[in-house]
Amino acid sequence: MATIKDIANRLGISVGTVSKGLNGANDISEQLRQSVLDTAVEMGYTPKQMRAKDNRRLCVFIENMDYETPEQFGYDIILGFKQLAYRERCDVTVIPVTPSLQANEKYDTYMLKNGYVGAFMLGFALQDNWMEQLNTTTMPTVLFDNYIRKNLNVGYVGTDSFEGIDSAIEHLISLGHSKIALLNGSSHSMITEQRRQAYIDSMSAHNLTFDENWMPYAHFSADAAKYHVAGLLDLGATAIICGNDLLASGAIEDCRKRGIKIPEDISIIGFDDIPVSAKLNPPLTTIRQDRLELGKCGFYTLNSLINHVSVSKNLLRPQLIIRNSTASVKN
Amino acid sequence: MATIKDIANRLGISVGTVSKGLNGANDISEQLRQSVLDTAVEMGYTPKQMRAKDNRRLCVFIENMDYETPEQFGYDIILGFKQLAYRERCDVTVIPVTPSLQANEKYDTYMLKNGYVGAFMLGFALQDNWMEQLNTTTMPTVLFDNYIRKNLNVGYVGTDSFEGIDSAIEHLISLGHSKIALLNGSSHSMITEQRRQAYIDSMSAHNLTFDENWMPYAHFSADAAKYHVAGLLDLGATAIICGNDLLASGAIEDCRKRGIKIPEDISIIGFDDIPVSAKLNPPLTTIRQDRLELGKCGFYTLNSLINHVSVSKNLLRPQLIIRNSTASVKN
Repeated sequence: MATIKDIANRLGISVGTVSKGLNGANDISEQLRQSVLDTAVEMGYTPKQMRAKDNRRLCVFIENMDYETPEQFGYDIILGFKQLAYRERCDVTVIPVTPSLQANEKYDTYMLKNGYVGAFMLGFALQDNWMEQLNTTTMPTVLFDNYIRKNLNVGYVGTDSFEGIDSAIEHLISLGHSKIALLNGSSHSMITEQRRQAYIDSMSAHNLTFDENWMPYAHFSADAAKYHVAGLLDLGATAIICGNDLLASGAIEDCRKRGIKIPEDISIIGFDDIPVSAKLNPPLTTIRQDRLELGKCGFYTLNSLINHVSVSKNLLRPQLIIRNSTASVKN
Repeated sequence: MATIKDIANRLGISVGTVSKGLNGANDISEQLRQSVLDTAVEMGYTPKQMRAKDNRRLCVFIENMDYETPEQFGYDIILGFKQLAYRERCDVTVIPVTPSLQANEKYDTYMLKNGYVGAFMLGFALQDNWMEQLNTTTMPTVLFDNYIRKNLNVGYVGTDSFEGIDSAIEHLISLGHSKIALLNGSSHSMITEQRRQAYIDSMSAHNLTFDENWMPYAHFSADAAKYHVAGLLDLGATAIICGNDLLASGAIEDCRKRGIKIPEDISIIGFDDIPVSAKLNPPLTTIRQDRLELGKCGFYTLNSLINHVSVSKNLLRPQLIIRNSTASVKN
């Protein structure tokens, strides 16, 4: 675990200043205090004041998502959530969840028994036991990328797929493309359906031609791409937007095997901007979800619910990150 | 302006306890302190600590919306915004905006000149001068019921129309209705288009029949209803969902003039739940937007933007309030 000295070294300030930041002293700026707290959380240092008995206890439930190292998808989401929770004097416990935990104990019971006043849920699937129970839970609960209808205690946070897909299509149009396919993720996922609708809306708004064959479902894995790329090439696609970066990396690999050059012969766009995207060959153009912001947004939304402001959906802006996997259409 | 004694009387606590709440003393509970602050804001009392020089200055710009008395639509929105702003030590100035102010000064210039670090905008229309400038503003800005594409500094808050319209349609179906019309608000409004799409989605999902004639555009006023009600009755509608409560009150009035009884002959549903809705004859079933929560949501969203969390859309849960303007379909 990091010490005060580690935090001081990282920020290039004195140990005394770090202490002031951690203790809420008045003679340092609010901005510096927040930097100290954010860095403490990032480095795994837990100031004593954060362990006080009267702190509100929150938890992050996570499954189907890696989060233990900075390269993994969930790491920054949890970090962002914790950074804001610290500022507001909340304790955060991260709990990996298994199907058997969900089968053995009701969600509300688990929360009450352990004294949690709110939860942020990452990576849950629609068929999970606890998802069904969220329809009627009385615990303030925020879901990442999942939506529960009509329960005032449950909110959804995610990235605005409509704006993301539209940015990607507009970027491709500016490069002369009109034959644009969507190689989507797994069917029966809320996010997959949202991105499909976003593709339909944006293609229609730009008067581009497409049909069912242009938007196949695959899976959210690199391996799934190879079953679909050939079909899209046969249709004459000059650009493929993929459901996530893994799928995009698989599409790049499959094209390479077929002797098709990227971006000269075909443009590929991903979704997420996971750390590996910049290191692909070629570096991937992708629709970025800012995971640190998603974690912060999760905290803001949970805090709203705890304060009886019934947020239904809180969506973040995506950003199109343009790298080298997209180029002007081949004449 | 209210005094400390007024606040004490309202809450039924001593003047000393109110003082403690206002001064942030440690020996009262956090919950009571927040009650004291919320009540102080509601009663127009400004504690000295809130006027300190280092407070962040926020403003609420408002036009096309009444807000000066509790019966008016904007009142509770502004109250909710101020209540949370006080807790976070922000000053709030409410500024009625005219077209000439917008023509005379650029939005960013106005904000910078007056030292505001963020704004909440209510009642703006798409053709307003400042709306165009929001595409590129660098000032954290939150819009109620209006959406700006792709600017990381601008967020949108509102009520989830999709869930609201769907609740209304499900309520009518449970009463045996299937011939359900949407008497919508003014065309070219984002909210009108959203409610139209929500109607289309929900009617389709429930396999109910409708076409263009079942979803006419009117205006957001009582007077506009009379041009459309007869047409909907001719189509055989047994229920009409209206774009807002004013339009619903106009529909009720027009039916009465035609000798058509509500809810015996036709069911009417409004949108908003403005204070007058409960006093109509019959009291109106309506899709409630909680205006106090909308104001609070506006503050949370603005605070997110100020902290570089780029919220695109933050939507609140609507609630269907069932009164006497809906009943089982006539056999």
